[in-house]
Amino acid sequence: MGDIVLREFGSFFVGGHEVILHDIPDVSFRCQDGSLQNVSLNGQFEAGQMYVQYAKLAAPKAKYPLLMWHGGGLTGATWGSTPDGREGWQSLFMRWGHDVYVSDSVERGRSSWNMYPQIYRTHPEFTTKAACWSNFRMGPVFSEDHSKRQAYEGTQFPVEFYDEFCRQIVPRWRSMDDWAQQAYNDLVNRFDGGCVIMAHSQGANFAIPAALAHPDKVKGLILLEPARTPDPKTTDFSVLKDIPQLILWGDFIKVPELCAWTKAAYFTIYPEYFRIMKGLGAPVEWINLPEQGIYGNTHLLMMDRNSVQVAEVVQQWMTSAGLMK
Amino acid sequence: MGDIVLREFGSFFVGGHEVILHDIPDVSFRCQDGSLQNVSLNGQFEAGQMYVQYAKLAAPKAKYPLLMWHGGGLTGATWGSTPDGREGWQSLFMRWGHDVYVSDSVERGRSSWNMYPQIYRTHPEFTTKAACWSNFRMGPVFSEDHSKRQAYEGTQFPVEFYDEFCRQIVPRWRSMDDWAQQAYNDLVNRFDGGCVIMAHSQGANFAIPAALAHPDKVKGLILLEPARTPDPKTTDFSVLKDIPQLILWGDFIKVPELCAWTKAAYFTIYPEYFRIMKGLGAPVEWINLPEQGIYGNTHLLMMDRNSVQVAEVVQQWMTSAGLMK
Repeated sequence: MGDIVLREFGSFFVGGHEVILHDIPDVSFRCQDGSLQNVSLNGQFEAGQMYVQYAKLAAPKAKYPLLMWHGGGLTGATWGSTPDGREGWQSLFMRWGHDVYVSDSVERGRSSWNMYPQIYRTHPEFTTKAACWSNFRMGPVFSEDHSKRQAYEGTQFPVEFYDEFCRQIVPRWRSMDDWAQQAYNDLVNRFDGGCVIMAHSQGANFAIPAALAHPDKVKGLILLEPARTPDPKTTDFSVLKDIPQLILWGDFIKVPELCAWTKAAYFTIYPEYFRIMKGLGAPVEWINLPEQGIYGNTHLLMMDRNSVQVAEVVQQWMTSAGLMK
Repeated sequence: MGDIVLREFGSFFVGGHEVILHDIPDVSFRCQDGSLQNVSLNGQFEAGQMYVQYAKLAAPKAKYPLLMWHGGGLTGATWGSTPDGREGWQSLFMRWGHDVYVSDSVERGRSSWNMYPQIYRTHPEFTTKAACWSNFRMGPVFSEDHSKRQAYEGTQFPVEFYDEFCRQIVPRWRSMDDWAQQAYNDLVNRFDGGCVIMAHSQGANFAIPAALAHPDKVKGLILLEPARTPDPKTTDFSVLKDIPQLILWGDFIKVPELCAWTKAAYFTIYPEYFRIMKGLGAPVEWINLPEQGIYGNTHLLMMDRNSVQVAEVVQQWMTSAGLMK
C-alpha cells in the first residue's frame, strides 16, 4: 500500500479556560488499608480543553485536512488500530493522502477531566460492556459469561476481541457538552483554508453545530452512524447548503432489539435532517451499506473486519464530492 | 531535517483485567439545575489497561524500538509538540530513525480510569498550577496572577506558555502503581527483540522495575530527571549490569526552593543507585546538562526552548552506547 510520508507530526490543545477554586474543604478518604487520605481540591486549574494530534503529509492528495471525531464514551483511540490489530482509519486515511487530526473530546482521554461537582457539573457515567454490546449493535444477547454472548449472524465485528475493544471505553459526562462544543468550534475555526469533519456517533452531535458556527471553514461532513442533530424547529440549517455531506449506516438496523438511540437517529432524526438538506438543495448523500451489498457492519464500522472496504466507500464519496486534489 | 517515512502507525492496549460489580447502590447526584441524577455503577468493566501508540519507520536507524514513558500527572502528550508549538520528542526521535512507542500510564489519558473506591482504591489527586510550578522547577515565585509569577533567570522553559502546558495535566492516583507497573511490564515483555526505555520523572519509577522484571528485553534505559528507584536495601540490581543507562539532569537543581522530590532524587536516591550500578560495572552515565555548558533546563526539558539540543545529548549517548545501527 505504500509508506506514509510525514512532514510534521504533533499535537495541541484547543478550547478551555482557567478555573480557580478557593475554600473548598479537603476530601477525606478512607483507603483500602484503612488509612485516611486527605486530598486538597483548591487551586488553579485548566478546564474544558481538548487534545488534538495531527499528522501532516509531505504530499497530501486531499484538498483539506481531515478531522476525526470519536463517539460517546470513547477517545481518539477509536481511529487507531482495530481491536484485533489491523490498521485503523487514522493510519489508513493518512496512507490515502489526508492530513489527519484526531482529537479526544473534552473530559476524555488526553484532554483530561476536572473534579466534580466543584468544576464539572455532575458525576460521570461508567459505560458497561453490556451497554456497549447493545449500543454498538454487537448482537441480540449479552452475558457476563463471554461464551454465552450472541453476536448477530454475519457480523463483521471481530467479536472474539470485544473485551479488547472495551479497553477503549472511558468515563463520560452528559453534562459538559457545551464545553466540548466550544472546543470543537475552536478547532474548526483554526482552519482558515477549510477542513473536512468525519464524525462518528456522538461526534456528529458536535460536528453539525460546529459547521453551523463556522460554515465557511467546513468543506465536507462525513457523518458515520450519527446520533443527533440540533433541533430542526429552532435551527436554520441553510448555511450548510453548500457543504457536501455523507450520512452512512451499517447493518442490523432493523433487528427487533435495536437500541433506542439508533432507532431514533435512523428512523426519525436523520431522515428529517436529510429531507431538510435535500430541500435546501444541499449535496447530501445517504448510504445504507447493505444496499451496496456490504453486509454485517456494526456501529463500530471502523473496527469491523471489512473496515477497509467501508473506508473505501467513504473515500470514493470524498472523491466524487470534489474533496480530493 | 527530512521527512518521516512510516511503514506502520497504530495503537494497542496492554495489561489490565476484567472487573464485575454487582449490588453497588446507584450514585444519586444533585445537578446544577437542581435535578437529581442517578448513575449506576454496576456492570462489567475493563480496568488497569494501558494505551500505547506506535510508529514504525520504513527504515529505522536505531537497533531497538524506543518506548517513551511520561511523568506524574501527565500523559503521552508530554512527547507531542511543545506548549509553544515546536516539534516534540515523539516526532523528533522518529525523524532521527527510531520506531517510537508512546504510552499513557494506567489511570491517565487514553488508558482510561475506573470509579473509586469501588474499583480504584482511593480518590484521585488534582495537580494545581502552583504544584507544577514548583515540581517542574519553573521559578522561585508562583502566583495565581499570571503577571506576578517569577521564573528562574535564564530558564529555557517558554514560561509565557506555562498555562498552555497546564492543559496537559490530568488527575492522578497514588494508589494504583501496582496496576501501572504490571501494564508497563507487559509492554516491555512484548519486545522479544529488545527495546529502549526513555522514562521521564515518575516514569523511571516504573522503568527500573520493568527492566528488573525483563532484563533480557531492555537494551537501554534513559532516565530523564528520574524520581525514585526500588529500595536498594531489598533489591538486587545485578541483572541490570549489562544495560546501558543514562541519568540526565537539567539546571536549577541547587536553588534554595528546590522541591522535595527533586532534592531526594538528585542528592540521595540516584547517587546511591549510580554508585551501585558503577559497583556492578554497569555502563551507566550521569549527565548534568550545565556541566556540558547547557544551562536553564527545567524538569520539562523535552518542552524547553532548547529541547532539540537536549535531545541531541540523548541521541549522542545512544550512539555511543551502541544503540544505533
